[in-house]
Amino acid sequence: MGRYDDLMSLSLRKGFLIPSAEIYGGFSGFYDYGHNGARLRRKWEDLWIRYFLGLGENYHLIDTSTVLPYKALEASGHVDLFTDILVYCTKCREAHRADQLIEAATGTSGEGMNVAQVSAAIKQNGIRCQRCGGPLGDPVPFNIMFPLAVGPQGEDRGFLRPETAQGAYLSFKREFEILRKKLPLGLAMVGKAYRNEISPRQGTYRMREFGQAELQIFFDPAVFEESLDMGSVEDRVLQIAWARSREEVSEETVRGLVTDGAMPSFYAYHLAKVQEFYLNQIQVPRESFRLYELTEEERAFYNDIHFDVQINLTSLGGFREVGGVHYRTSYDLTRHAEHSGEKMEVFHGGKRFVPHVLELSFGVDRNIWATLDLGYDMGEKAVLRVPPRLAPFACAVFPLVNKGELPQMAKGIYRDLRQWTDVLYDDSGSIGRRYARMDEIGTPYCLTVDYDSLEKRDVTVRDRDTTDQVRVPVLQLRSTLTGLLEGTVTFDSLKVGG
Amino acid sequence: MGRYDDLMSLSLRKGFLIPSAEIYGGFSGFYDYGHNGARLRRKWEDLWIRYFLGLGENYHLIDTSTVLPYKALEASGHVDLFTDILVYCTKCREAHRADQLIEAATGTSGEGMNVAQVSAAIKQNGIRCQRCGGPLGDPVPFNIMFPLAVGPQGEDRGFLRPETAQGAYLSFKREFEILRKKLPLGLAMVGKAYRNEISPRQGTYRMREFGQAELQIFFDPAVFEESLDMGSVEDRVLQIAWARSREEVSEETVRGLVTDGAMPSFYAYHLAKVQEFYLNQIQVPRESFRLYELTEEERAFYNDIHFDVQINLTSLGGFREVGGVHYRTSYDLTRHAEHSGEKMEVFHGGKRFVPHVLELSFGVDRNIWATLDLGYDMGEKAVLRVPPRLAPFACAVFPLVNKGELPQMAKGIYRDLRQWTDVLYDDSGSIGRRYARMDEIGTPYCLTVDYDSLEKRDVTVRDRDTTDQVRVPVLQLRSTLTGLLEGTVTFDSLKVGG
Repeated sequence: MGRYDDLMSLSLRKGFLIPSAEIYGGFSGFYDYGHNGARLRRKWEDLWIRYFLGLGENYHLIDTSTVLPYKALEASGHVDLFTDILVYCTKCREAHRADQLIEAATGTSGEGMNVAQVSAAIKQNGIRCQRCGGPLGDPVPFNIMFPLAVGPQGEDRGFLRPETAQGAYLSFKREFEILRKKLPLGLAMVGKAYRNEISPRQGTYRMREFGQAELQIFFDPAVFEESLDMGSVEDRVLQIAWARSREEVSEETVRGLVTDGAMPSFYAYHLAKVQEFYLNQIQVPRESFRLYELTEEERAFYNDIHFDVQINLTSLGGFREVGGVHYRTSYDLTRHAEHSGEKMEVFHGGKRFVPHVLELSFGVDRNIWATLDLGYDMGEKAVLRVPPRLAPFACAVFPLVNKGELPQMAKGIYRDLRQWTDVLYDDSGSIGRRYARMDEIGTPYCLTVDYDSLEKRDVTVRDRDTTDQVRVPVLQLRSTLTGLLEGTVTFDSLKVGG
Repeated sequence: MGRYDDLMSLSLRKGFLIPSAEIYGGFSGFYDYGHNGARLRRKWEDLWIRYFLGLGENYHLIDTSTVLPYKALEASGHVDLFTDILVYCTKCREAHRADQLIEAATGTSGEGMNVAQVSAAIKQNGIRCQRCGGPLGDPVPFNIMFPLAVGPQGEDRGFLRPETAQGAYLSFKREFEILRKKLPLGLAMVGKAYRNEISPRQGTYRMREFGQAELQIFFDPAVFEESLDMGSVEDRVLQIAWARSREEVSEETVRGLVTDGAMPSFYAYHLAKVQEFYLNQIQVPRESFRLYELTEEERAFYNDIHFDVQINLTSLGGFREVGGVHYRTSYDLTRHAEHSGEKMEVFHGGKRFVPHVLELSFGVDRNIWATLDLGYDMGEKAVLRVPPRLAPFACAVFPLVNKGELPQMAKGIYRDLRQWTDVLYDDSGSIGRRYARMDEIGTPYCLTVDYDSLEKRDVTVRDRDTTDQVRVPVLQLRSTLTGLLEGTVTFDSLKVGG
């Protein structure tokens, strides 16, 4: 088994990710989050929300409906343009996604090709059905949105939203007014989006229902950088994979990028902030992270600048996209203004204009997968080394033995802790076995109540990553654990103190 | 304007609830959460999760897909039975929901009637189209699930899930095994569900996309009560509206209910816990809360006992359902076992059986609406009196005047606070105007930096509900606010201390 299979198997056995409707044989393109996965995801989302809302003082969380009316998605261009190219086998009727077929046959990506180019590529390379070897039919565009007939007679046509972004654009006008007409304005959303992928694959990497965490920043391009603390990031070294030389990551300072005119300073600033999120908050190793420039052919036509956020994932064979930074200009607001008849111009800073949008977009499930991939240390025993505040459970409480007064004291501590944090209780098997169980699901701190505890009112706290232990008084457990989880206290400093 | 209109208007102006795709004229049955609503909802969910997972040591959060395959919903009975009865006007083609039509015409509920009964009621009462007065056609059953064609040829039929519950039943077998085969096992979920309501109405009260927060408890009915701390609830007085005398609430102790044999003790225990959640955590006044028994005709055929959780909502004209406690027996697991071929029997406590299910089910949007309805005090100025930990923002920071060193100190405090909590900064208009703005969105604590603050390193903290003020040292702000939000510190105790 490769790393991918190992990870998927562990994920299933430990209740992270599980195929949906498993007892009915699963449902292609859909996954469930089990009891550890659901907590990991909620914590990742909480961390994302705090960090990205923290980028601006006028940045807010909203949550809009997952079903959108036809008109809104016609305006956004999704009704006409949100298509993949589909090729059927004329013999076995298998449906293939043209770009994947071409990539599999030729080794170069077929992304961004139109119908004529796909036709030509199939002919030139003699590509046939991957399943039965039969001849392929003519390529056809296939809209990957899920249509929905709303109302008793299906009279209100709609779609499951293909991205959360549109909800923010549709809300812009109302929120701009409620929030007293200030720019930049940030509208963040964490929620579901849906795409009828032709061939979903690679676990949670390409799903039909998936989570997105997106921040849309509305701004005046003439003055945006003045509102940013450029000085705080200008010495940062970014890991850039330029379109012209992709296989080598180039280390570039923000100052250099801006001075060279490689990109606007507001764009470089946000690349730095996204990198900071991954390197500092999620603790991705620098060498496993890169910002990957897309060419004009590769990026959507409304994006002026587009870098993917990529992480090197062993389970998926290399660097893979987990997010993107998209300068969408005024495209979306202008389209909605045209189609809805509502003005999207604002009067701000003495002039009237349609705000531009910078989108910071992240795939939640891809990030969860990346967290598991980067975190799982599959030695003799599996240990999930995720940052403590992302761990499904912050701590576990064990009585050393399950007799005498130990269980009672341990239960009391457990019940106190669960008032404010996520904690497990385990009294079965040897302490070693219990540590191993907690290591497998990433629990950073295990608290053992032993005979000394009864007298001294303290417990042993064991650190997942070093297996070091310190004794902590019961009365200080909350403050100590809070400090450890927030990163304001280190485990080593406790040892010195003890 | 009535209370409903006042509330909806305020909700819109303050960014709580906003019609979806508003710039396109809205989308019937769909609402968005604006920047205050999204935070209120996330906090309500966090509170719900902590409280309900806290009911058992083997209770866990999961998150399953919102799209389910046809087979799973055929097994659950939804494909055949999840219908409302629809009556079209033969003249204007308006679609009416039969039970609502009958209730509007006769004043008694048409819920639970079959097609023949609806036909008879229409004839007997001479009911005609509410819109044009035309004659009505024959009633027809209408399945209110949204079908979804999945895959490029729509070959995988599915539905948007009509309730989150099924995800937990489909996960039971896998989670029971991962969690080492213990009962009771609780699987909680907070997520979206979808119903193609014939006539969505009353704001967020009956929507086509809505949030549910549900806990499914799997147990052995022979021994469930032994695992519950009955002693802790037996003196609790429950507000019961019996089916036989609904207009009067009867105050009953848990002990009395159990001794009388009115319901199993495990059921009474959970009614008490649900009431505790509303009275203590959400702070609903006792007289505005009741547990409303459903008759055999009213409840779903698989429910053995069913009480709705109801709150008296001025905006909706009386007590309205916000949740329910459903004893679903082994119905769901047995159906899925039959249809999937997977055994749902467990071996536990020395015997083999299919676990029973107690479902604690809550409508998230209805609860948010109820929170706004109960909380909004519409005096001369609107004040949203929600429990502090539900407020969209925990606090706000103001410089008394926007000059000298005050703004700098205020900004510093604001930036420290936003590392760990939700806080707003406001420096525009008089202090009175700023208090009023915060009162309108329920911010419980306003912190003002004045000239004394510069010297004494403290701020004025003003309490939303009493408008009392105390001075708190900057260094103690975090611990003081944490205590106030968690309810371990009272505002009065600060005054005595100061």
